[in-house]
Amino acid sequence: MAKQEKNPDKIGVLTSGGDAPGMNAAIRAVVRSCVYYDITPYGIYQGYQGFIDDKFEKMEAGSVKHIIHQGGTVLKSARSADFRTDQGMEKAWKNVQKHDLDALVVIGGDGTFSGALEFGERYDFSIVGIPGTIDNDIFGTDFTVGFDTAVNTVVEAVDKIRDTATSHNRLFFIEVMGRDAGFIAVYSGIGAGAEEVLIPEIDRDVDKLFQSLERTSQRKKSSRLVIVAEGESKSVFELEDEVQQRFGDRYETKVTILGHVQRGGRPNTADRVLASRLGVRSVEALMNGRRNVMVGVRNRSVTFTDFKKATERKPEMDDALLRIADIISI
Amino acid sequence: MAKQEKNPDKIGVLTSGGDAPGMNAAIRAVVRSCVYYDITPYGIYQGYQGFIDDKFEKMEAGSVKHIIHQGGTVLKSARSADFRTDQGMEKAWKNVQKHDLDALVVIGGDGTFSGALEFGERYDFSIVGIPGTIDNDIFGTDFTVGFDTAVNTVVEAVDKIRDTATSHNRLFFIEVMGRDAGFIAVYSGIGAGAEEVLIPEIDRDVDKLFQSLERTSQRKKSSRLVIVAEGESKSVFELEDEVQQRFGDRYETKVTILGHVQRGGRPNTADRVLASRLGVRSVEALMNGRRNVMVGVRNRSVTFTDFKKATERKPEMDDALLRIADIISI
Amino acid sequence: MAKQEKNPDKIGVLTSGGDAPGMNAAIRAVVRSCVYYDITPYGIYQGYQGFIDDKFEKMEAGSVKHIIHQGGTVLKSARSADFRTDQGMEKAWKNVQKHDLDALVVIGGDGTFSGALEFGERYDFSIVGIPGTIDNDIFGTDFTVGFDTAVNTVVEAVDKIRDTATSHNRLFFIEVMGRDAGFIAVYSGIGAGAEEVLIPEIDRDVDKLFQSLERTSQRKKSSRLVIVAEGESKSVFELEDEVQQRFGDRYETKVTILGHVQRGGRPNTADRVLASRLGVRSVEALMNGRRNVMVGVRNRSVTFTDFKKATERKPEMDDALLRIADIISI
Amino acid sequence: MAKQEKNPDKIGVLTSGGDAPGMNAAIRAVVRSCVYYDITPYGIYQGYQGFIDDKFEKMEAGSVKHIIHQGGTVLKSARSADFRTDQGMEKAWKNVQKHDLDALVVIGGDGTFSGALEFGERYDFSIVGIPGTIDNDIFGTDFTVGFDTAVNTVVEAVDKIRDTATSHNRLFFIEVMGRDAGFIAVYSGIGAGAEEVLIPEIDRDVDKLFQSLERTSQRKKSSRLVIVAEGESKSVFELEDEVQQRFGDRYETKVTILGHVQRGGRPNTADRVLASRLGVRSVEALMNGRRNVMVGVRNRSVTFTDFKKATERKPEMDDALLRIADIISI
Repeated sequence: MAKQEKNPDKIGVLTSGGDAPGMNAAIRAVVRSCVYYDITPYGIYQGYQGFIDDKFEKMEAGSVKHIIHQGGTVLKSARSADFRTDQGMEKAWKNVQKHDLDALVVIGGDGTFSGALEFGERYDFSIVGIPGTIDNDIFGTDFTVGFDTAVNTVVEAVDKIRDTATSHNRLFFIEVMGRDAGFIAVYSGIGAGAEEVLIPEIDRDVDKLFQSLERTSQRKKSSRLVIVAEGESKSVFELEDEVQQRFGDRYETKVTILGHVQRGGRPNTADRVLASRLGVRSVEALMNGRRNVMVGVRNRSVTFTDFKKATERKPEMDDALLRIADIISI
Repeated sequence: MAKQEKNPDKIGVLTSGGDAPGMNAAIRAVVRSCVYYDITPYGIYQGYQGFIDDKFEKMEAGSVKHIIHQGGTVLKSARSADFRTDQGMEKAWKNVQKHDLDALVVIGGDGTFSGALEFGERYDFSIVGIPGTIDNDIFGTDFTVGFDTAVNTVVEAVDKIRDTATSHNRLFFIEVMGRDAGFIAVYSGIGAGAEEVLIPEIDRDVDKLFQSLERTSQRKKSSRLVIVAEGESKSVFELEDEVQQRFGDRYETKVTILGHVQRGGRPNTADRVLASRLGVRSVEALMNGRRNVMVGVRNRSVTFTDFKKATERKPEMDDALLRIADIISI
Repeated sequence: MAKQEKNPDKIGVLTSGGDAPGMNAAIRAVVRSCVYYDITPYGIYQGYQGFIDDKFEKMEAGSVKHIIHQGGTVLKSARSADFRTDQGMEKAWKNVQKHDLDALVVIGGDGTFSGALEFGERYDFSIVGIPGTIDNDIFGTDFTVGFDTAVNTVVEAVDKIRDTATSHNRLFFIEVMGRDAGFIAVYSGIGAGAEEVLIPEIDRDVDKLFQSLERTSQRKKSSRLVIVAEGESKSVFELEDEVQQRFGDRYETKVTILGHVQRGGRPNTADRVLASRLGVRSVEALMNGRRNVMVGVRNRSVTFTDFKKATERKPEMDDALLRIADIISI
Repeated sequence: MAKQEKNPDKIGVLTSGGDAPGMNAAIRAVVRSCVYYDITPYGIYQGYQGFIDDKFEKMEAGSVKHIIHQGGTVLKSARSADFRTDQGMEKAWKNVQKHDLDALVVIGGDGTFSGALEFGERYDFSIVGIPGTIDNDIFGTDFTVGFDTAVNTVVEAVDKIRDTATSHNRLFFIEVMGRDAGFIAVYSGIGAGAEEVLIPEIDRDVDKLFQSLERTSQRKKSSRLVIVAEGESKSVFELEDEVQQRFGDRYETKVTILGHVQRGGRPNTADRVLASRLGVRSVEALMNGRRNVMVGVRNRSVTFTDFKKATERKPEMDDALLRIADIISI
């Protein structure tokens, strides 16, 4: 990691990929840190697409006033097929030169970091990444910006569903986000007091569910909630179907797919604090000559992970939590 | 309506049909009013099924402590096929005699009131109803217990979806509850600032949607939210499909079905106050010899509607509100 | 009320006095209705002070995008001493002429309407008012914009306080807003299940409180919440003091003053719908030649009340609700 | 730390000191873990006072159903002067023998652990502690149960106050809990985007505030929020007073004391997950022969801290966060 010879004068910031609550707090922290260190911040709209299409806007401290508590991203986000082409990258590089940008902060997930890695290497350009995704599926940080809020959104929804499940003695299958990772499912399952959690990381958890339903259908339990990560091998509808066939006489079943509500909403404090911290540290990292790294928090300290590692490896599911979930759902 | 010769000594209360936030506040008010007027209250569990199966429990003021803010119903609810049979009704009547019950308060929707009407007439028994359903589809009251909370739950969810819709410039179809009535859709559509609302009461609103999409696809509008009542002639998936075929090049679409979260949750103040008012007045109505009526609130005053009328007629959709919705979604 | 000869071409809108949740929804509806009817809307910043200081801004439909769910007022508010002087009024009138404004919508409380009445009469200028205040203390409308949200904010806070009160068996005095009117106290008292409510409209309610404490200190009741309107004859601290002197051996007391949190927050659906409705109808009223009136909702219909009457009379406290509060706090 | 020769047969659990959101999740996890490991759980009501007064209740898995999301503590809490006397301890010890209790889990703060330490040593009795307090002021754990919820409650309240502060261009002083520790103030200050945070750990932060007010009163900043921990050297009212004297012509000031709302409310997911984890591990610790230790989480792993150390040392304020707060409030 080469030390830059001088401080950056101009730093851009963009959000890319799926939006996550807290992205605005991160943008705000990047912009304010730039102002604090006499660097000119540029907001780039609509992710890498705007990077290509020259949607740059010079910012100041006031540009990010009253956004810390807003969901979504004021810079908007988009997936960009163009950025995977040579022409796209070339156009973006021309914009960097045109605006005389010294460095870039990208906020997003592993797709975002892959793009950053390629662009940074190709043009010898300094980029630092902030993990912003509700899925918590990024290696190199204990938590991603947006995860805590998403999990709380799920738990609030499941608390409501429990009201009606309990009133009617029903078995609910609730699908939550997490195509590759079951973090949202596990945390919200424990938080909501769900009876079962099904995640892609665990094989044969469906068998375990059926055994548990067999067992509890003999004693009396007023209602049951099963949280299913969308990446689970069977869909919620397939699961409901099988349960109907096997246990239809003993359980009345319902399905709820929580969907896009999980992406939005006012960010919780943990996400605002995490985003603020990473925003400040990403700018300071660039000032210290860091590049092609993602800034994260592990064990309450800020850490840096090479983009390569951050995109190639996956964080491990916490077995201790799975065990906790089993014990208290007795 | 015959005046009873003496005050009731014992009054039962049950919740029936789909649960709704605020039912607990109504139960609490019925029980506390009984205590206030020296009447013994009996809670009956699991609706008409528990009425048949003798799930009666004597209550006192403390039995309903700290339930005013809880969603669902502590008395549980159930649909009962048995109550539509002669044997079922006969069993329930035996329980009434066994516990020496003088009258009953039923909390639910029009199915609940139909059952009450038949039972009340068959055995010359006094029943008063409280409208408890999130759909607001009961004739004889401005609002039903649960509607305000459900609408706010929808609007909170749509506020979250707007965050992500705006960040990505997407068109969202959001299905809300309301099989026969579009009240939830219209109120939440106005409240959430949705661009379009589709309800069963209005023909050809799908055509209007397509015209509007045609028009706005030419100018720039960052995101669009369409609220669809579940009773609408086309499902959200059919709608999405048609929009994809016609406008797939101009709009990226997503579907969210809010589902059972709409039934649960802490009741809002309006529902708690309404439920408290109707709970007190239902007991007082029985004391005054009223029977076979639903107690509601119209124009801020308590009114009574015969069960017959309450179940045969439907409240009208408020055209003034539909007009408002059109004007401000410009 | 003279019928205008032509439709207004330009309408201004301002917010004045204490801010209330839902004011943004009202501004949005006024602006959008203007656009809908081909009228040019002008936002005037900082209430009557900006009216004097020429803080006018031409608006369009997009100016009020994504504000329906925001608390506070994007037009800001201020109390203006200048507007009570001849020079202040004269300056404001010059601005009206300069911008060629045909009419004005003011959103606020009775102080706002008094100013509007005087200005409107002095310069023969058309003004319509929208009741926007959390206190619900305006004659001529069932509810003011902001009341429902404020009451729910109070009830959410009291629900939290009840958690801790119950855990410790404490007596809490909770002061809520309402200098002249006890509406917030009564609605939130019923909604939160408070044991007592003290409001300025009722004499001797403190005596009643002491009797009740005397009575219940003999039987066991785990915790007690007393809601006190700020306009009550005794302050919460005086009340706590007296209770300590008389019942200090039997009750552990605590005081909470909810304060300014009651003014803020995302408006609830009821306030958004009410504000949208009144916003549209205020513009239509001006188009129909109405002037010097407040637009309100009574019995679910829109009504008009002369500014004179709206400022001179006070809405009556709902005795039926006070009775309900007494019965269910048994 | 002596290894017990046999597994405990009966374990008691109590909550003591100020209540905190998540205590119920901890109780639930302790009870369920006992059931899972064939240990009989006993709930002890009203903290050490109930320990003395023999308020023991045998529990089972169903006893803690549907409490994970409730604020406060179903076991109630109390401060007990009696437990600091020989007679009190002796009575409690008799109850332990009477019920044949093998061990105890106490949930609370450092006062709770001091009592546990003395009792455990005096009678050679096994006690494990769970840190439950909103203040986060316990050595030996990254976070205490209740802190995350309390901080989010504060931030939600400050978000509301910002609405009204912004609408009126006001300077607000907001007092939050934290007599000895500024954690709530710092986290909520960053999360709410407050302009200044005053905490007991930092000297001369009032001077810094005045300098900042001096500086910003010259440029235009629409509103300012100052978060003040209750342990700060000057009270919010003294601060307001001084600011009025020095800057009264430039700032309109307001004070809000958030008070007991900070203790209550539905626990957030982070607190539910933390409490569940610590609840399970406290029972397992007792099974493994641990005693006189507090179980906490550091760096995502469960750790044990001697009661002595947990009560004598204080966690350090995170300087990195203070620096972040400074930079982004520019």
